Amino acid sequence: MANIAFIGLGNMGGPMAGNLAKAGHAVTGFDLVAANNEAAKARNVCIAENARAAVKDADIVITMLPAGKHVLAVYEDIMSATKKGALLIDSSTIDVDSARAAHVLAAKAGLQSLDAPVSGGVGGAEAATLTFMCGGADEAFTRGKSVIEAMGKKIVHCGGAGAGQAAKICNNMILGISMIAVGEAFVLGEKLGLTHQALFDVASTASGQCWSLTTYCPVPGPVPTSPANRDYQPGFAAALMLKDLLLSQEASQSSGATTPLGQHAADLYKAFAAAGHDGKDFSGIINFLRAGLK
Amino acid sequence: MANIAFIGLGNMGGPMAGNLAKAGHAVTGFDLVAANNEAAKARNVCIAENARAAVKDADIVITMLPAGKHVLAVYEDIMSATKKGALLIDSSTIDVDSARAAHVLAAKAGLQSLDAPVSGGVGGAEAATLTFMCGGADEAFTRGKSVIEAMGKKIVHCGGAGAGQAAKICNNMILGISMIAVGEAFVLGEKLGLTHQALFDVASTASGQCWSLTTYCPVPGPVPTSPANRDYQPGFAAALMLKDLLLSQEASQSSGATTPLGQHAADLYKAFAAAGHDGKDFSGIINFLRAGLK
Repeated sequence: MANIAFIGLGNMGGPMAGNLAKAGHAVTGFDLVAANNEAAKARNVCIAENARAAVKDADIVITMLPAGKHVLAVYEDIMSATKKGALLIDSSTIDVDSARAAHVLAAKAGLQSLDAPVSGGVGGAEAATLTFMCGGADEAFTRGKSVIEAMGKKIVHCGGAGAGQAAKICNNMILGISMIAVGEAFVLGEKLGLTHQALFDVASTASGQCWSLTTYCPVPGPVPTSPANRDYQPGFAAALMLKDLLLSQEASQSSGATTPLGQHAADLYKAFAAAGHDGKDFSGIINFLRAGLK
Repeated sequence: MANIAFIGLGNMGGPMAGNLAKAGHAVTGFDLVAANNEAAKARNVCIAENARAAVKDADIVITMLPAGKHVLAVYEDIMSATKKGALLIDSSTIDVDSARAAHVLAAKAGLQSLDAPVSGGVGGAEAATLTFMCGGADEAFTRGKSVIEAMGKKIVHCGGAGAGQAAKICNNMILGISMIAVGEAFVLGEKLGLTHQALFDVASTASGQCWSLTTYCPVPGPVPTSPANRDYQPGFAAALMLKDLLLSQEASQSSGATTPLGQHAADLYKAFAAAGHDGKDFSGIINFLRAGLK
């Protein structure tokens, strides 16, 4: 069992830290929001006075923060307080450039590091069924995996520094685009008098098959567990899909990739969020399409 | 066994008519291209002097033609020559409005009719493994199915008049969009240093999973049977994907549906075809994206 520091105890970090404690690790955490610290205490996480104090005795330091700037600020802050030989794991979903900069900061301090963003949402964080997409050296991955296993079900080594973030934004770009595609198909089908079930029956077993259709169907009925059956309560909020699509477009621009449908999907989710639907499940964009983007 | 007339004996119609003959039906065909008639003869299809002569004794009349205008012209031509009680099956992929107009022509002549476009390409036509998406009355479907079974493996009743065409263009709109999405994800992954296999391994078992990725992967390697492994020889040519995307946009405009990514995908395939790649498999659009749409 390891001494683990956990910085960022919000909706995701709180239950993740709790699962580490449940697995028998000694977890010391810190969050800027007092209520998050209180909630983490109830999950058997010790709370430190600040991030530097939290990492003091840690073998493993995990961060779960909103954006690249927060991760880099925390890394700058804790680096000199971190034990020699500690492993840094950043599970935030952030831009690839910042993820790489975080690896560089760690390497300068002689520390191993992983970028390890997750998918699976708050439900997956609570149930310890998250998927972790990891970027970093083999040794860091092997070492990190033994701890990550207490928080997730599937742990993939995607490549070197930044590869975890890259895999996540590439996957989620496909997801964002295909959800809109499925929404457009149902809306067009409705106008043509095609029932939801008929389109589902054809496309789910044909070349239109995709996760957005067969696991997360954006109309009520065909897939009883999808958010469409509960008035589009998330699930995966549109605001988070927008965040990931903006990260993929940032990476496209920074790396010189051409991703026109990715950009278009980001624009559509931006309009959907701006119309007040950012808290709805991202599959709810079908209603925005049905209403003519109004 | 039925007397069947088959109008349109091209790349698709030729082998389809041949499979009907192979199943023991008496098939009389006609095509405007002499070479197609010759090829069909070798498949035991009798060739008539013209379309009216072909349908004279037929219980079932099947059409397999390039576009709505051809189907309507043939229907106008043959209607008065067609036997009372015959069933008309149009397997062409055409616009929904023309498909409905064809049903109306049939009904005026007191004939049953089905729109029954297919997927599966020339390979599926040869092997009698096509998927048929059918629109029309229950009785017409039941009657047509017994004959269609000699040409296909999966036969779906999608609803009333035009529902077969509607299901096909909705499915293929998802397909066209998701293929570009997968292409963009691989191109972005490349720029970020992510290997094809790593992205495939993550997305194929996550929320980015789709037929375009897991059955028809647009980069060589992960799916050995995909056209990417044979220099993007079709398969399903870009020109045909463009045709289907234009049909879906025509239907969107005509019915008042909002399908922005469908329109964008049509624009991208139009540019890809215009750049001289219309004969390549549609998955080859990844190379066009990689080159910055040049």
